[in-house]
Amino acid sequence: MRQLKLNRAFTLIEPGPVVLVTTHDGRKNNVMTISWTMVVDFTPVFAITTGEWNHSFAALRKHRECVIAVPTVDLLDEVVGIGTCSGAAMDKFARFRLTPVRGKIVKAPLIKECLANIECRVIDIVKKHDIVVLEGVAAHVDAAREERRTIHAVGDGTFIVDGRRLNRRKMMTSKIPQGV
Amino acid sequence: MRQLKLNRAFTLIEPGPVVLVTTHDGRKNNVMTISWTMVVDFTPVFAITTGEWNHSFAALRKHRECVIAVPTVDLLDEVVGIGTCSGAAMDKFARFRLTPVRGKIVKAPLIKECLANIECRVIDIVKKHDIVVLEGVAAHVDAAREERRTIHAVGDGTFIVDGRRLNRRKMMTSKIPQGV
Repeated sequence: MRQLKLNRAFTLIEPGPVVLVTTHDGRKNNVMTISWTMVVDFTPVFAITTGEWNHSFAALRKHRECVIAVPTVDLLDEVVGIGTCSGAAMDKFARFRLTPVRGKIVKAPLIKECLANIECRVIDIVKKHDIVVLEGVAAHVDAAREERRTIHAVGDGTFIVDGRRLNRRKMMTSKIPQGV
Repeated sequence: MRQLKLNRAFTLIEPGPVVLVTTHDGRKNNVMTISWTMVVDFTPVFAITTGEWNHSFAALRKHRECVIAVPTVDLLDEVVGIGTCSGAAMDKFARFRLTPVRGKIVKAPLIKECLANIECRVIDIVKKHDIVVLEGVAAHVDAAREERRTIHAVGDGTFIVDGRRLNRRKMMTSKIPQGV
């Protein structure tokens, strides 16, 4: 995986793909499927909605680190599988044949099979709304990957695959951060 | 527009489309383009990132109401245009030929040309992160509309259009809220 400039990392999350979030509890890796994500700042800062109902939350709260991994459509069944079982009962990396890769900064693993990975630190937990605020500290992309279409969870058990891409860069010049 | 059951409204936002958010300041309507959104609860609760830099924010903070309108790909140029000018200087509904429609509960207008509209009340503003937390109080969809593909902002001036839809309802039975 190639490093991606941090000022471009928000472009991985802004389109709203379903993501995998990895944690490390000091002993073992875990991974959860999260569709409720949001960019909060270009720097980048992200928000995810999670709480006690996810087994990963304890490691996230204690170690204050995670990796947001962006899967593509060929991983849909893994994404759904990871989202419908608990890391309390099994090693999800082994169960879904995902390869943990050591990151540059955090102890939570990157996922080799994913299109992109963003190493993050927890900068705040807004308990009242179960919102965890994350700062991206390093980003990686698999530039060689052929399948690059991400997937968008609808929430009713269906998923929308990325279709064509339209360009409005000229109209948007004033709004695009420098270098993006 | 037909009313949509409130327990299904989160499925409009979970896939991560770019949306239009309307407000009414007691005197006039305004509308802004927002790509930084997140579902926070099925009930439904949503988060959006916005602040003083958006002219609409003053009306949102004061009147504590808005409408999240979901545009489709045929409205891309309006979405980009709305996102690159300010309601301080013009009537954006007139400028972009959008038709304001009276909602059921809030004073902010629905947008007739959009696929769906969710009337919302502001339930919290997390000032530290510029996160506005919204509760959906009524939802509407244009069931007759032919074009139903939404658009996902990448943040670099490009947009991804919805592609095909894949079904994993059987695998996800345990995770889909009742009636969705």
